[in-house]
Amino acid sequence: MTEIRIIGLEGIPEIHPGEDVAAHVAAAAERQGGLEDGDVVVIAHKAVSKAEGRVVELASVRPSRYGEQISADRDPRQTEVILGETARIVRLRPPLLIAQTRHGFVCASAGVDASNAPAQGTVVLLPEDPDASAERICAALADRTGRRVAVIVTDSFGRAWRRGTTDVAIGAAGLQVVLDLRGRRDPVGYELHATAIAVADEIAGAAELVLGKTDGVPAAIVRGLGVAGSGSGKELIIPAARDLFR
Amino acid sequence: MTEIRIIGLEGIPEIHPGEDVAAHVAAAAERQGGLEDGDVVVIAHKAVSKAEGRVVELASVRPSRYGEQISADRDPRQTEVILGETARIVRLRPPLLIAQTRHGFVCASAGVDASNAPAQGTVVLLPEDPDASAERICAALADRTGRRVAVIVTDSFGRAWRRGTTDVAIGAAGLQVVLDLRGRRDPVGYELHATAIAVADEIAGAAELVLGKTDGVPAAIVRGLGVAGSGSGKELIIPAARDLFR
Repeated sequence: MTEIRIIGLEGIPEIHPGEDVAAHVAAAAERQGGLEDGDVVVIAHKAVSKAEGRVVELASVRPSRYGEQISADRDPRQTEVILGETARIVRLRPPLLIAQTRHGFVCASAGVDASNAPAQGTVVLLPEDPDASAERICAALADRTGRRVAVIVTDSFGRAWRRGTTDVAIGAAGLQVVLDLRGRRDPVGYELHATAIAVADEIAGAAELVLGKTDGVPAAIVRGLGVAGSGSGKELIIPAARDLFR
Repeated sequence: MTEIRIIGLEGIPEIHPGEDVAAHVAAAAERQGGLEDGDVVVIAHKAVSKAEGRVVELASVRPSRYGEQISADRDPRQTEVILGETARIVRLRPPLLIAQTRHGFVCASAGVDASNAPAQGTVVLLPEDPDASAERICAALADRTGRRVAVIVTDSFGRAWRRGTTDVAIGAAGLQVVLDLRGRRDPVGYELHATAIAVADEIAGAAELVLGKTDGVPAAIVRGLGVAGSGSGKELIIPAARDLFR
C-alpha cells in the first residue's frame, strides 16, 4: 500500500536572527520519534529568513517618489522594500505588485511580507539564496541526526488564473524537484513527451496543509516519497526563452 | 501531533464508459480498511472522463484549416478536438496552445490529452462538468459506505513562470476549496488581509505524489485534514475582473 505521511513539527519557538534552524528542527523531530532516511523536511521560509536576519524595520526606510506613487493603501516604505527585491515588474495594479525577484521567482510583492513578521513595523524578505539555505540546513540535519534527509524551503505564491495561494519550493536540497517523465510510455504505448511533474512544489503544498492548520508550526516532515536525489529551487523557474508569459 | 496521511487506492481497473467510479473507489477503499468520515477522496479526472464517455476517436474528426495551421508536429485532428474545448486562446506557440476551456480553466491543450487514453488514436477530454461529477461521486460514496467524505477531481496543469505540472482541483464536493484567512490576525496583530489558501489545489497536488508513484492508481484518500464544508472547483477560477493575466 502506497502511503505518504505529513507530520507537523511542533514546539519550535519563534526564531530569532542568528539562531540555528536545523537545531530546532532536529530537536522537534527527536521529540516526535526522530527523522528517517528519505524524509523530506519542509520549512516555511519565514523561519529561515528570520534566522538569517532578512528582516527590515520600516522606520529605517525612506520611500522613493515612485514607491509613493504605486503604494495606494500600502505603507510606501514597504513598497520601497519590495522594489529593492524586484528585478522586473510583471504586473502592477496598486497596491498589488507582481514582481520577478532577484532570484527569478515571480510572486506578489517580490516575496516581501508583513504577516508573521517579528514585530509591528517590520517586514520579512525571502532568504538571500534559498537553495544555499536548504543545503546548509540539509547538511546540518545530517550532522545532527545521522540521517540522509532532503530539505525544501517554501513560500506561499499566488498563481495566474487561479484563486488563492499554494505553497511552493523556493529552495531545495537533497531531492529531485522535477520528475521528468519524457521518454516513458503509458500503458498503450503513447510517449509522455510533455510531462514533467513539479514534485517539490507538490510536496511544499502538501506540507502547507499541516503548517496552515496549526499556529506556530513552521516545519513538517513528508515521509514515504522516495524522491532522493539532487535538485534546487532554481530549477523550478522557467527559463526566459521558454516563458510564454513574460 | 498533527498528521495527514495520503493513501493510494490500489486495484482499481481501467475504467470504461458507463462504469460506476464510486463503486470502484468504495471497493478499493474497503480492501484497505474503509473510508472514514472527513476523508477527502481524490480522483484523477481521466478515470472520471472515461466513465462519462469523454473520449474522442481521432478517426472521427476532420480538422479545420486553422487547426492544421497551428498544429506543428501534433495530429491536426487532435488540435481540432482542443479547439472544440476552447473558449479563448490564451497563448499560442504551435504546437503549444494554452487555452481557457469552456469551464473557465486555463491550461495546456484545453485539457485534451492523448496520454493514458484508452487506446491509440483516442484522446480524453475533461469531464463536461467536473463539479457535478464530484458531487455525484460524493453522494454515491455516502450511499455505499455511510461515510461523509469529500471528493476532488484533478488534472495536471502547467503554471505560468514555473516548470512542470502540479495537480489541481477541477471539480470538488463536500469541502472548502479556499481557506480564507482575511480578518484573522497573526501573533503580532497584523491582519492577514490578502491571504486565501487554495487548499483543494494543495490536496490535489499532495495526492499526485501517491498517484504518480504507481501506475494504475487513479485515486487516493487524504486523511486528517478537517476541511469539511462546501465548495466547488469553479471557485478556484479567478474572476475575469480580478485577473491580471488575461
